[in-house]
Amino acid sequence: MSATAPVIAIIGGGQLGRMLALAGIPLGYRFRFLDPAPDCPAAAVGEVVVGAYDDEAAIEHLVRDAVAVTYEFENVPVKSALAAATRGRIAPSPRSLAIAQDRIAEKDFFRACGVPVQPYAAVSNDAELEKALERVGVPGVLKTRQLGYDGKGQCVIRNESALGPAFASLGRVPCIYEAFVPFEREVSIVATRAASGAFVAHPVCRNEHVGGILRVTVAADPDITVELARDGERHVRTIAERLGHIGTLAVEFFVVAGSLVANEMAPRVHNSGHWTIEGAVTSQFENHIRAVAGLPLGDPSVRGAAAMVNLIGEEPPLEDLLRIGGVHVHRYGKLPRAGRKLGHVTVVGREYDDLLPALDTLRTLTGVSAGAARRH
Amino acid sequence: MSATAPVIAIIGGGQLGRMLALAGIPLGYRFRFLDPAPDCPAAAVGEVVVGAYDDEAAIEHLVRDAVAVTYEFENVPVKSALAAATRGRIAPSPRSLAIAQDRIAEKDFFRACGVPVQPYAAVSNDAELEKALERVGVPGVLKTRQLGYDGKGQCVIRNESALGPAFASLGRVPCIYEAFVPFEREVSIVATRAASGAFVAHPVCRNEHVGGILRVTVAADPDITVELARDGERHVRTIAERLGHIGTLAVEFFVVAGSLVANEMAPRVHNSGHWTIEGAVTSQFENHIRAVAGLPLGDPSVRGAAAMVNLIGEEPPLEDLLRIGGVHVHRYGKLPRAGRKLGHVTVVGREYDDLLPALDTLRTLTGVSAGAARRH
Repeated sequence: MSATAPVIAIIGGGQLGRMLALAGIPLGYRFRFLDPAPDCPAAAVGEVVVGAYDDEAAIEHLVRDAVAVTYEFENVPVKSALAAATRGRIAPSPRSLAIAQDRIAEKDFFRACGVPVQPYAAVSNDAELEKALERVGVPGVLKTRQLGYDGKGQCVIRNESALGPAFASLGRVPCIYEAFVPFEREVSIVATRAASGAFVAHPVCRNEHVGGILRVTVAADPDITVELARDGERHVRTIAERLGHIGTLAVEFFVVAGSLVANEMAPRVHNSGHWTIEGAVTSQFENHIRAVAGLPLGDPSVRGAAAMVNLIGEEPPLEDLLRIGGVHVHRYGKLPRAGRKLGHVTVVGREYDDLLPALDTLRTLTGVSAGAARRH
Repeated sequence: MSATAPVIAIIGGGQLGRMLALAGIPLGYRFRFLDPAPDCPAAAVGEVVVGAYDDEAAIEHLVRDAVAVTYEFENVPVKSALAAATRGRIAPSPRSLAIAQDRIAEKDFFRACGVPVQPYAAVSNDAELEKALERVGVPGVLKTRQLGYDGKGQCVIRNESALGPAFASLGRVPCIYEAFVPFEREVSIVATRAASGAFVAHPVCRNEHVGGILRVTVAADPDITVELARDGERHVRTIAERLGHIGTLAVEFFVVAGSLVANEMAPRVHNSGHWTIEGAVTSQFENHIRAVAGLPLGDPSVRGAAAMVNLIGEEPPLEDLLRIGGVHVHRYGKLPRAGRKLGHVTVVGREYDDLLPALDTLRTLTGVSAGAARRH
């Protein structure tokens, strides 16, 4: 019976943990999560060890008999990850986590990998602030080096005098100042690397953000050229290999004058890969579980065409969503709150054009117009 | 958070309950199961109320705050179903269950629906045994009227003198004696009906049994003619409507001289519909949840082509299965035992021919040759 099933332990019990478990249970695993909230989204699919992410006793309890230990968000305190890692069973490694947690380390790492990035500079005091302005100019974006996500901890700088007040408004914590990128579109690649070195990448996706929050992802968008796809996959493979990454990771890029400029990475399954549950032969979630459990990776190809629309802040009535042809609804079991990711809807079809009617209906239901999407 | 999620209660915590929950959790439900075994396959995906299926106190506990109550196998005692049904929240109705539990009532019902069946007769004593032989002849199959599944409680009768001893070997419990059907192939249709009367049917599937146990299902097999598909869907729609069925059901047919002869039905999700998880736009499991929760039904079409191979008695190494391209592995968290359904593997592809290499490998790994499949 299932009491004998091996356990995979996950630090964090949010929707990513929930979807990792939904992918891993059919492979024969059971799941245990560390989360401060007993009624977190992952509670529906496994046991929750209630505790803070840096609670070493809770981590001990979490990992006790686990065959693999992983995490579902990049803001896990590195020392917690390291505490768990002392048993040598955590993937991705604390190195992937540490680099992804610091926007300067991340950009330095991209450059070291030969991956193009926009001009940037560290800002942790007034002297650095001046130098950053000289080097990067305006317009630019000031971001906290750590703990930023979904557009939080960011200020757009349109003239030089605004940078000082923006730095003050962010509490003068260590920041990065980046050149504003006049991008044509935003794309991402979600890929998985195994301990064996095997590497598989899902197709490049086109993303639409509103107010810093991802709203729409289209897999295999017809605007993505073969060259862009080839360059993107090469960059992500280099990043994964240089990190010695084990598991799924995502890299977001801007497309500028037809070329890729790396924006940021996430050392985990990513919102822009949620379409892979139904849209790819093997999903990002299943491939992450396969990687951390030491199993062969699966085929990341898109099955026909797919797109995803996030449900942010509030959810349209379930009946209205389910009446749309060819959709798959994923609710995370969270209470509504402004800006909160409550779920997503995936649309699948044979070809890109097949997706458009459902995508239009979903844009209307969720209030995302086709032209208005901008990150900043 | 997810503590507020509505609960769906399921009588039975086997693999069907497990897969129902895996389909229903993304829609925002949580699951509670009634099962005698605390470590049943569904324990990985919800709360288990440990108790016998006819334990009224346990049923009370199971259904207390559930928004819907359903079951995952047709041998639920009808009185239990009725006890739960007194709250008017169980689907499918006890009528679907009662008819499917009695092979005579089932065949009578098929005839009343205008669905062709083979000659059959009730056998509950020696006098009926003689009459049955006169009416049906040999060869035939003697089966218990109740509680038979996967070929259990059945005897093939090749000459008249064998019927009496066979009846004795089945304990002289009420039986049905059916004419042996010289079928060309076995097929099934899995369909779902909503309370609104909406009806959707997955494509006709070709099934291969060995020793009475389903081994292989192929969706949209090229040998299935348009006429056969049309007749089958019409029959299943009639059956579902006359039952007033709410939820998923499956009807198995023999193909004899190019026409359908109904063999049996299951008032629930069915092993021959497991391919729909990845192979159909909406799976049999999701449509059952949608039906019992009063939601609109989803598109039952096949996405390209799909096939399924059962893992019976023992499982090949997981690594070997995952190395096959385009497969999806579903393990049920059960210990190996001869004849036990431990899991299944689905293969998907654009066209039928794309499935064949993976299907061949799976046949080899599971010991099912392409020619040897026979129900009897």
